Amino acid sequence: MPLPSAFVGALREALGERDVLDDPATLDAHAADALGRGQAPDVVVRPADTAQVAAVARLCQQHRVPLVVRGAGTGYTGGAVPVRGGVVLSVERLNRILEIDEVNLTVVVEPAVITGDLQRAVEARGLYYPPDPASLESSSIGGNVAECAGGPRAFKYGTTKRYVLALEAVLPTGEIIHTGSKAVKNVVGYDLTQLLVGSEGTLAIVTRITLRLLPYPPARATVSASFADIRAAVDGVTALVRLGVIPAAIELIDGDSLRSVEAFVGRPVAPGASALLIVEADGVPAAVEEEIDRAAGALTAAGALSVTRAADDAARDALWAVRRQLSLALRATGLLKINHDVVVPRGRVPELFEEVERIKSAFGMRVACFGHAGDGNIHVNFMIDPADAAARERARLAERELFTRVVALEGSISGEHGIGFAKAPYLSLELSADEIALMQRVKRAFDPAGILNPGKIFPD
Amino acid sequence: MPLPSAFVGALREALGERDVLDDPATLDAHAADALGRGQAPDVVVRPADTAQVAAVARLCQQHRVPLVVRGAGTGYTGGAVPVRGGVVLSVERLNRILEIDEVNLTVVVEPAVITGDLQRAVEARGLYYPPDPASLESSSIGGNVAECAGGPRAFKYGTTKRYVLALEAVLPTGEIIHTGSKAVKNVVGYDLTQLLVGSEGTLAIVTRITLRLLPYPPARATVSASFADIRAAVDGVTALVRLGVIPAAIELIDGDSLRSVEAFVGRPVAPGASALLIVEADGVPAAVEEEIDRAAGALTAAGALSVTRAADDAARDALWAVRRQLSLALRATGLLKINHDVVVPRGRVPELFEEVERIKSAFGMRVACFGHAGDGNIHVNFMIDPADAAARERARLAERELFTRVVALEGSISGEHGIGFAKAPYLSLELSADEIALMQRVKRAFDPAGILNPGKIFPD
Repeated sequence: MPLPSAFVGALREALGERDVLDDPATLDAHAADALGRGQAPDVVVRPADTAQVAAVARLCQQHRVPLVVRGAGTGYTGGAVPVRGGVVLSVERLNRILEIDEVNLTVVVEPAVITGDLQRAVEARGLYYPPDPASLESSSIGGNVAECAGGPRAFKYGTTKRYVLALEAVLPTGEIIHTGSKAVKNVVGYDLTQLLVGSEGTLAIVTRITLRLLPYPPARATVSASFADIRAAVDGVTALVRLGVIPAAIELIDGDSLRSVEAFVGRPVAPGASALLIVEADGVPAAVEEEIDRAAGALTAAGALSVTRAADDAARDALWAVRRQLSLALRATGLLKINHDVVVPRGRVPELFEEVERIKSAFGMRVACFGHAGDGNIHVNFMIDPADAAARERARLAERELFTRVVALEGSISGEHGIGFAKAPYLSLELSADEIALMQRVKRAFDPAGILNPGKIFPD
Repeated sequence: MPLPSAFVGALREALGERDVLDDPATLDAHAADALGRGQAPDVVVRPADTAQVAAVARLCQQHRVPLVVRGAGTGYTGGAVPVRGGVVLSVERLNRILEIDEVNLTVVVEPAVITGDLQRAVEARGLYYPPDPASLESSSIGGNVAECAGGPRAFKYGTTKRYVLALEAVLPTGEIIHTGSKAVKNVVGYDLTQLLVGSEGTLAIVTRITLRLLPYPPARATVSASFADIRAAVDGVTALVRLGVIPAAIELIDGDSLRSVEAFVGRPVAPGASALLIVEADGVPAAVEEEIDRAAGALTAAGALSVTRAADDAARDALWAVRRQLSLALRATGLLKINHDVVVPRGRVPELFEEVERIKSAFGMRVACFGHAGDGNIHVNFMIDPADAAARERARLAERELFTRVVALEGSISGEHGIGFAKAPYLSLELSADEIALMQRVKRAFDPAGILNPGKIFPD
């Protein structure tokens, strides 16, 4: 159904001709995100400021037109892509770092700032924004807030939500609201800040974000430990945690992933190993030394084939480059990588890997795993031939099986990527009908007409 | 209006005679919390389990009877007290620690567990639950969750909300819901866990709480620094933060509070000083030494009259005893202590103290201040003669003036105690009409009939 011409005309009047786009190339460029599926919008708008965002919302509300917000488009569950046409509101022009406050340890940003740029900007002042999704050089902070992005450092530092102090946002009914405050404590009314973080662009349009920062840790050290099998590596993680050591990150890479990276980079990364752990500590120098020594000792005691400390920054960067290249390396196999970011309580990671083994054999599929072992958040990648329809069908069945088992292990079907439309059919595996109904009532409290990012999170 | 007898009969049938109480002494004992004001309920119920809680909710829903949940009754804003009669649901029988999980670093508790008991139980296993409200020996974890309790350690460790992973709760319409999961990351649907934390018992009745724990820090060290005036002490805090040191706690006590404590304990605490800072570091031993040395150096450089390190545990406990006795000591003056837990961004604490000085002279009132200087969360206590009606009226005017100035300083009218009914008249100083309306729509999503803790948070 084409949009009413009065509606498009009003958009042009509110934003100017240049920032209301409906040429086929632009529409097509907004028809998918990193998931690779979705629908083209009918029009793309690029508001210049909060007032223009509110004007767009009011028009969409008035004409009952679906409104989808898009940042960098790096999401894995289709959160920034229409499934019912309508307007895509690109926040690309809201891209400023507005204030870095060195006394209060806060930064105020607009949503389109790339997370890596934000980190470098605050690091130049001796400050630290810990959340580090693997996409940090391409994803934007607004998207990180919408999805509650994680990353390796979440083990010690928590995910995006722990850093969001305050938000400016536009409701789908057009009101501009402010949640939270620059003060680090605030218990006045309901915590709408935390409700908006991770709400996948379904409740409000975030236009300004105040983040809490930390002093930049003066020291950092990294060890890698190779293991004969994944079970031994997971035992290593348990040993670390039992020791009372909380490093900044404990990352796990399985054998299939290691071999793919080795093929991709053309050199051995962990020869002879079927699992690799990367453990990083940061903080004051003496503490880092103590933590990394205890970690290395625990990993050796847990049966590591080798434990190697990165000798310098270059060696550490090389190690993390292996971790960051995993997605690229798996895609370079030529297979379709279907990425699931399941999470279980840390102590149940061994059982999760048993389930993965079972699924591998039952569905005859390559499965490559890596991720945030300390958090129990493992990226389980189904690797299938994109041309093989039967394999795709098997992957779909395997997906349901994986999610069912994860929930039985007291886990969650998503630790980082959210639900979007990709996982909406599985929501009821984890949430009861009463819980889903309650969330839908919360949704209506924000969006009575259901115009904001329809078709996401909740199954139709 | 008396309760319908069919309603009370149904309560007795659901819970048994013994746990449905309406004798005058019981009703009177539930007519006030630490605020000292409120209204008696018509009946007090003591459910034994979640199913009985749900039965009470369904009956209240059906008969449209106000339902107020009460834990230990230590709140400062009247959150656990009826203002429209009805039922008080005491969670006192839900008082078990159900599971301490040393691998996943979690604990599952019922709401009536006293926070100090919870801390000791996990510490016996080498684990750490950091939030430490001054009331920890009398307040319960359910109340801490309802109010999002803070405490000195919040500076480094955050408030209660950072530790709540999952909740079981009963909606006022009777459904039992589960939010979050034992897994430390979970982005499936809206974050109802964080929405319930700090919702002051107005959205749901929490019946079970899963908390994240940390390894118990192996070392701890404490210094106190005395200053000639409050301004110098606040400069000391700024110096610490600029140094990049994040100790576990930075507590500030002003001269008036110091003199009251000295009178209360009958010995000098900080002779000749008009302000005292207590700085505590915890973590691995080497890091603690480094942090405490740097902190002591910064405090000396900032002009401290004296900087003293607690020589042993007894000396440290004595120092913290001073801090914990402040409320008692101020009450022992015989004056009425009206406690405001305002919070401003840390860098604006000096301006907050200027405002307090102005208010002191303008309203001719003693004001004693202490609190969590690192967080900018200062307890501003108006000290008035309870028999002096004019002084009470001045305190009311001063209260509005204080809150107005705090909001102008980018702060919040409550950092720890919440709104309850005591601060409801001031909500609109901080939140816009649109924001309040949105929160009320969220309230209705949980409680369409408005039976759960009516008259709280939102002004009538």
